[in-house]
Amino acid sequence: MNNDLFYMNEALKEANKAYDKGEVPIGAVIVKNDKIISRAYNLKETKNNACKHAELIAIEKASKKLKNWRLLDCTIYVTMFPCPMCASAINQSRISKIVYGTIPKYADQQVIKSILNDKNYGNPVEIVEKVLEKDCTQLLKKFFLKKR
Amino acid sequence: MNNDLFYMNEALKEANKAYDKGEVPIGAVIVKNDKIISRAYNLKETKNNACKHAELIAIEKASKKLKNWRLLDCTIYVTMFPCPMCASAINQSRISKIVYGTIPKYADQQVIKSILNDKNYGNPVEIVEKVLEKDCTQLLKKFFLKKR
Repeated sequence: MNNDLFYMNEALKEANKAYDKGEVPIGAVIVKNDKIISRAYNLKETKNNACKHAELIAIEKASKKLKNWRLLDCTIYVTMFPCPMCASAINQSRISKIVYGTIPKYADQQVIKSILNDKNYGNPVEIVEKVLEKDCTQLLKKFFLKKR
Repeated sequence: MNNDLFYMNEALKEANKAYDKGEVPIGAVIVKNDKIISRAYNLKETKNNACKHAELIAIEKASKKLKNWRLLDCTIYVTMFPCPMCASAINQSRISKIVYGTIPKYADQQVIKSILNDKNYGNPVEIVEKVLEKDCTQLLKKFFLKKR
């Protein structure tokens, strides 16, 4: 198993924890020097806060661990393409690379990629697309089918 | 003094607290039914977290107070035009209106206004521009002059 598959699978484990709590199943891990330094999953409903997306919680934990808001040379693995809030948080926290799983149809890729690459607010972020796409999509589908 | 001036002045008081801590002086208050339900200022350096902008902290506090991530019929007053992260957080938390003070030259107004109005992630947010602009600009200028 290559590294991207391995770490995305760890992000999927986080997404499954969100699923078990009745949250939209999205998970993330942040990796530095081939080590996971933080793991998180979506807790919007549980925490009653629209900002408690997996990515923002993962960034908070990683920053605490490194005692630095600059998450240099870090990669974030996230099961779904980020919303504009999380894309900008990733850009502003100086994360070097994002690897994502699935992408929702409503996401405006052009806008969100420009946010990830915005040099006025942060550093350009390398993007690796659609790793374990099928599994990440499947988990979200299962969630929304159950909800209906 | 009209309401917008009054509440922006309260946001400025928050920005001054950031200034005193050596943080980029940006402050915010959230108002519902003509009452301030949360106040916050930028704590990025103090908290070692790129996401600890005044707006995100204010949203977190307001959500806790209302025990709801939907900040319906709320207005956020913020001394500076939001970054993409905060614009999306305001949109996703269902805040109805943003009143801002000053706007930085590098801000891509078109992109950020489209994020505030994004119906795929949240609710369109009404925008009131440049309230107490001079005072908000002045405080930021004072900060960056001192930094040099």
